[in-house]
Amino acid sequence: MRIGIADTTFSRVNLGQIAIDTIGDKASIERYTVPGFKDLPVACKILFEKYHCDLILALAWCGKEDVDELCAHEANQGLIQVEIEASKHILKVFFHEKETANLEEQKHVASERARKHALNALELIKGKEALTPYAGTGKRQGYEDEGAL
Amino acid sequence: MRIGIADTTFSRVNLGQIAIDTIGDKASIERYTVPGFKDLPVACKILFEKYHCDLILALAWCGKEDVDELCAHEANQGLIQVEIEASKHILKVFFHEKETANLEEQKHVASERARKHALNALELIKGKEALTPYAGTGKRQGYEDEGAL
Amino acid sequence: MRIGIADTTFSRVNLGQIAIDTIGDKASIERYTVPGFKDLPVACKILFEKYHCDLILALAWCGKEDVDELCAHEANQGLIQVEIEASKHILKVFFHEKETANLEEQKHVASERARKHALNALELIKGKEALTPYAGTGKRQGYEDEGAL
Amino acid sequence: MRIGIADTTFSRVNLGQIAIDTIGDKASIERYTVPGFKDLPVACKILFEKYHCDLILALAWCGKEDVDELCAHEANQGLIQVEIEASKHILKVFFHEKETANLEEQKHVASERARKHALNALELIKGKEALTPYAGTGKRQGYEDEGAL
Amino acid sequence: MRIGIADTTFSRVNLGQIAIDTIGDKASIERYTVPGFKDLPVACKILFEKYHCDLILALAWCGKEDVDELCAHEANQGLIQVEIEASKHILKVFFHEKETANLEEQKHVASERARKHALNALELIKGKEALTPYAGTGKRQGYEDEGAL
Repeated sequence: MRIGIADTTFSRVNLGQIAIDTIGDKASIERYTVPGFKDLPVACKILFEKYHCDLILALAWCGKEDVDELCAHEANQGLIQVEIEASKHILKVFFHEKETANLEEQKHVASERARKHALNALELIKGKEALTPYAGTGKRQGYEDEGAL
Repeated sequence: MRIGIADTTFSRVNLGQIAIDTIGDKASIERYTVPGFKDLPVACKILFEKYHCDLILALAWCGKEDVDELCAHEANQGLIQVEIEASKHILKVFFHEKETANLEEQKHVASERARKHALNALELIKGKEALTPYAGTGKRQGYEDEGAL
Repeated sequence: MRIGIADTTFSRVNLGQIAIDTIGDKASIERYTVPGFKDLPVACKILFEKYHCDLILALAWCGKEDVDELCAHEANQGLIQVEIEASKHILKVFFHEKETANLEEQKHVASERARKHALNALELIKGKEALTPYAGTGKRQGYEDEGAL
Repeated sequence: MRIGIADTTFSRVNLGQIAIDTIGDKASIERYTVPGFKDLPVACKILFEKYHCDLILALAWCGKEDVDELCAHEANQGLIQVEIEASKHILKVFFHEKETANLEEQKHVASERARKHALNALELIKGKEALTPYAGTGKRQGYEDEGAL
Repeated sequence: MRIGIADTTFSRVNLGQIAIDTIGDKASIERYTVPGFKDLPVACKILFEKYHCDLILALAWCGKEDVDELCAHEANQGLIQVEIEASKHILKVFFHEKETANLEEQKHVASERARKHALNALELIKGKEALTPYAGTGKRQGYEDEGAL
C-alpha cells in the first residue's frame, strides 16, 4: 500500500512528519509539499496520477481570518473533486486557528488530529467496512470522542 | 435492488443501522463507513462504481460550529456531483446539531430522519412517479409534515 | 417538444401540477417527483438522459431557515451543472419562505412563479431570440414586473 | 470574429443592445436572451457549441436582496465552468442593485459597464497580450478608473 | 521550463511584471492579461493548453467590498478546477484590499507576495519535495513568516 502525504509550508506544525511517523512501516510513503492549502488539490491529483498512491492525507493549517476560512473551503471543494475523480480517499486534515488562540493548544490539537487521521487512513485502506464497528460512536480527531448518544 | 449505506464514525447515532433495519429484506445492502461527512462523496462514488448500488443513503451528523456547517455544504456539493455523474440518487440524510441542543431530541430527530428517508429510498427506486401522489404535500423527515397550503 | 417537470414532496404547493396545467397541450410532459430540492439535479439529469426532455422546469420550495437557503444554493449549483452538461435549459423555479411569512402570499407567489416560468419555458424552446423583445424590460416571476429604467 | 451576447429579461436596462451598439461592425453578433442570470451559463454553452462564438458577453442585473447575490454567485460559477470547458472568454458583466439605490445611477453604471466590457471584448479577441499595456493600472468598468499605485 | 503569468488590468500594482522580474532568466515566460480576476481561470486554461506552460502564477487584486471577496472566491474555485484538470500548479497570488486600507502598505504587501510566490514557483517546478525542508515552518507571502510552533 502507498499513502500520499500532502502538506504545506504555511502550517506552523510539521503535520506531514507526524503522519509519516504514525504510519511507520505499515505503508510506503510519497510526500508532496506545497506553499498553502489551496495548492493541495492539484498536488493530490499528481500523487494519485503520477505516484500511484492508494490514499492521501492532505494536511493543512488554516489562519484565523475569514479569508483563510474561505480558502479552506475552496481547498476542501477541490480535494473532494480530486478524490471523486480518482475514486480514492483523501483524508482532509485541517487545523483552524479559530478553534483556539492558545499556541500550545494549537500545536496539540493539530498534532493529535494528524496522528488520529493517519490511523484512520490505515483502517480505510483495508476496505469499506473496516470502520463500521465504530459507526455512530461519535469519534473525534484532535479532541476527546463525543461518544454515542 | 441494491441500496448503499454510507455512514460515519463522527455521528453520535448509528444512522446506518437504522436505515438498514428499515429497509429490511426489501433490498440488498452494501455498507461503507468513513470518518466524517466530507469522506462520503468518494465513498458513494465507490459504492456506485465498484459495488453497483442502485441508490445510496448518505447519512451524516453535523456538529454545532459554523465550520461544521461549511463542511456539510462541501459534502453536499460533492454528493450531488457524484449522483449527477452516476445518474442515480443519493439521499442526503444529515442531522445538524444546530437544530436542537437537547440530546434526546437530537437522537430522536436524527433517527426519524434516517428511517423516513429509508422509506423514501424504497419508493424512489420504483420509478420517477412513485412519489408524485405526495408532490406539494409538505412532507418532512425528522419532524411532523407541514402539509399542503 | 417534451418538457420535464421535476418537483418535490417537500413543497407546500403542487407547483408541478400548476406548470403542467399552464403548458396544457403545447408540449408533452415527463414528470419526476423527489423528496427535496437537493434531489432535483440528478432527477433532471435522468429526465434529459433517459426521458429525452428538451427543457425542464425544476420546481422547489425553500424553508425559512439558513440551512434551507444553503441547500437551495447547492441545488442550484447542481442544476446549473446538469444543464451545462446537457446543453439544454432547466428553469429553476424556487419559492423561498424568507420572501414572506404570510401563508396566503406564499401560495400566491409560488403559484404565479410556476405559471410564469412555464410560459417562459414555452418561449425558450422556440429559440434563442424568442425572449429578446423583452430583454432589459425588468420582467419578474411571482411579483409585478419592475419594468425598464 | 463572432461575439455572443447573452442577456436577460430580468434586467432593467437593455444591456445587450448597448453592447451590440458598442461593437458595431467590428464583429458579427449572436444574441441569446434568457429570463434570469442563472439561465446564462447554459445559454453561453449553446452560443459556443451551436453558434460558434469566439467570445461572449454575459450581461445581467442582480436584485438588491441577499438571495439575488447568491444567485449571481451561482451564475458566475456556472459561467466560469463554461468558459473553462470551451477555452474561450465569457466577460461577466453584472450590475448589482446593492451598488446604489438611485435609479439614474443604476442605469448609468450598468450602461457604462456594458459599454466598457464590450470594448474589453474587442481587445481580448486580438490575443493574450492586447491588454498587457494596461496591466496593473487599476482599470474599472462602470466607475472611474482607480489608477496605478 | 515555461512559466505562465496571468494578470489583470483591475490590479493597482503591476504584479505580473514583478513576477517576471523575479523569475529573470530562470524560465521562459508567457503572459496573459485579462480585465479582472474572474477572467483568470480561462486565461490559465489557455496558457496550459495552447502555450504549454509548466506552471502558472495567477496574480490578482481584490477590491474592498464583499462582492469583490465573493468574486475572488469564484476565481479561486475556477483556478483550482483548471489546475486539477491540467495536473499542473497555478499559484494563486491575490492581494485583498481588506487586508489594509493604507495605500503604501497595499503596494508593499501585494508586491512582496508576488515576489515570494515567484520564488515558490521556481522551487515547485523542481519537484514535489523541493519545498519539504520548509514544511510546517509557518512561511508567509507578503508578511513576515509566522514560524514553526
